[in-house]
Amino acid sequence: MARADQDLAFMLRYENIAWYEDGEVRILDRRIYPREVRFVHCKTHVEVAQAITDMVTQSCGPFTAASAGMALAAWECRDRSKEGQWAFLQQAAETISHARPTTVARMQRITGGCLAAAREALDRGEAVDQAIVRHLIAANDRRYNKVSQMAGYLVDMFPQGGKVMTQCFGETIVGMMLRECKRRGNPIKLFCPETRPYFQGARLTATVCSEMGFDTTVITDNMPAFVMQREGIDVFTCAADAICLDGYVVNKVGTFQIAIAAKYMGIPFFVSGVPDQGHPTKDTIHVELRDPAFVLQAMGVRTAADGVKGYYPSFDVTPPSLISGVVTDRGIYSPYDLPRYLDGADLGEFEMVV
Amino acid sequence: MARADQDLAFMLRYENIAWYEDGEVRILDRRIYPREVRFVHCKTHVEVAQAITDMVTQSCGPFTAASAGMALAAWECRDRSKEGQWAFLQQAAETISHARPTTVARMQRITGGCLAAAREALDRGEAVDQAIVRHLIAANDRRYNKVSQMAGYLVDMFPQGGKVMTQCFGETIVGMMLRECKRRGNPIKLFCPETRPYFQGARLTATVCSEMGFDTTVITDNMPAFVMQREGIDVFTCAADAICLDGYVVNKVGTFQIAIAAKYMGIPFFVSGVPDQGHPTKDTIHVELRDPAFVLQAMGVRTAADGVKGYYPSFDVTPPSLISGVVTDRGIYSPYDLPRYLDGADLGEFEMVV
Repeated sequence: MARADQDLAFMLRYENIAWYEDGEVRILDRRIYPREVRFVHCKTHVEVAQAITDMVTQSCGPFTAASAGMALAAWECRDRSKEGQWAFLQQAAETISHARPTTVARMQRITGGCLAAAREALDRGEAVDQAIVRHLIAANDRRYNKVSQMAGYLVDMFPQGGKVMTQCFGETIVGMMLRECKRRGNPIKLFCPETRPYFQGARLTATVCSEMGFDTTVITDNMPAFVMQREGIDVFTCAADAICLDGYVVNKVGTFQIAIAAKYMGIPFFVSGVPDQGHPTKDTIHVELRDPAFVLQAMGVRTAADGVKGYYPSFDVTPPSLISGVVTDRGIYSPYDLPRYLDGADLGEFEMVV
Repeated sequence: MARADQDLAFMLRYENIAWYEDGEVRILDRRIYPREVRFVHCKTHVEVAQAITDMVTQSCGPFTAASAGMALAAWECRDRSKEGQWAFLQQAAETISHARPTTVARMQRITGGCLAAAREALDRGEAVDQAIVRHLIAANDRRYNKVSQMAGYLVDMFPQGGKVMTQCFGETIVGMMLRECKRRGNPIKLFCPETRPYFQGARLTATVCSEMGFDTTVITDNMPAFVMQREGIDVFTCAADAICLDGYVVNKVGTFQIAIAAKYMGIPFFVSGVPDQGHPTKDTIHVELRDPAFVLQAMGVRTAADGVKGYYPSFDVTPPSLISGVVTDRGIYSPYDLPRYLDGADLGEFEMVV
């Protein structure tokens, strides 16, 4: 297998985080990965929605899991009448879409695509679960093509051998980005904040970077400003949970303050992803506050004394004034010029992704 | 016992982190506190220096431990000739002073004070270890008085019921500050970043705040900017490992980026402590890089995959342009006006402290 193909296979392994087969959805448990490789097995779409709520999977995982959950819902109701199946699937789409308050709009587009595939299959009398799986595979193919284009524009921004700081980076874009760096012979060095309280940066982003052969350093979340200054970081980059059309970017908590530090240091900050038509302005964003007790432990060990409170916002919102550019599949846009991207864009399920 | 006395007793309990008695130094092991209350027992001053290097104690702990270590050194050499004792103590002072590269100058002033007390005792034929203990107690008394004055000026900056963000705060000043808040009936709310990789904020600062009866919330180190904006933080404040005379402040890593965020938000940032005559400019600062593997774990549990590197600066350096004022025992100084503080100041061992 050629090296580039190995890289693709590697990325697909990381990608293959949720799948449907014969009445079961299997989701890689990211809460314990990479220490342990264990899967959560769901027998109903309600269990899939619960797994998404419980943060079993992250990054683009919830969106893949949502489609797989829709296939499972089709399996669950396969013996009902056509009308009964349709009603069941519509209800399942609502349940899954609301698994996390921050991503309802994007989830509704994912489950909406699945419903369309299901409708066609019902009308033709085909197996609905298989139709949804085919729909998911086709969407993934289109997605890979687009993320690959995006990665090209992003890597254009990296100096040769440059130092790149990430923040809780989605595996698809980080994998494609590194594949493109390899293709161009650009041995960038990565600095990954660990991303408390779940350590996604230390556990996931850094693992992908290191296993793809890049020099990778994990730092704690209080070190970005020091490292930017001392090590001479060239670029800060991350993906986004949502990119509002007014240029506000929703991403893992911490992005906002790293962006403030980058601005202070004069370091460019690029966000990869596509503008989200479901979020015309930042006012459509609801920042989920999760279980506060979770910040009072680390890797399962309690850190604080009894009587102390916790506070756990899952995301933060970075204003366009701190963002150098939004890297899309059709080039780099100013964060103040995002509606132009939507003109004639072939969006499809793509927004589910990076 | 009146409430104010209880508070003082409480602070003294937190203060009493290292002590010398009859040929042994006992140091509270802050690496596991408050989960467990366990002491490291040192039978030689070399073991004390090693314990300081190993981060058994933090904040003002290393300075108290250094004095206790000098008393222990006096005990170790008690059967030698006067000249032999003096040579032994001078060597011990060097060993202890170099336990951590960042604090050599301050440690030399601490051990220098102990040497002066020892010299007097030797000349008078008194027990040298006891003379050093008396010296330590007297220095602590002077210190309490000064920190108490400092706390008064700091609390002047807090609005009634205000929200105060801390960073890895020394127990003496935080205890005095909260005692002063109580005296004035100002129920401030505290937000304490956890301070990775050692969690001093979660384990130590937050414990003191909560046990003194204040509303205390721990956040992870990637949340300060979000919390400043969302919760409306009124003041950011911390102590310092060193305050250079040119206004650069050395403190636990993370201080720099919280200060950048505070500046961005228009939130004032006050540093408590006294200007350090041993550091005329920031160029005298050596930022210690500690064992990089330590950032790849949390509470003893590995977070990152093999092959990933770590990076562990213990401190960072915040420029005066980000600092609203340096709170001393004689009022609040502009960070650009610190040499004036030294004119006629009674410094003594005070710099060891906050």
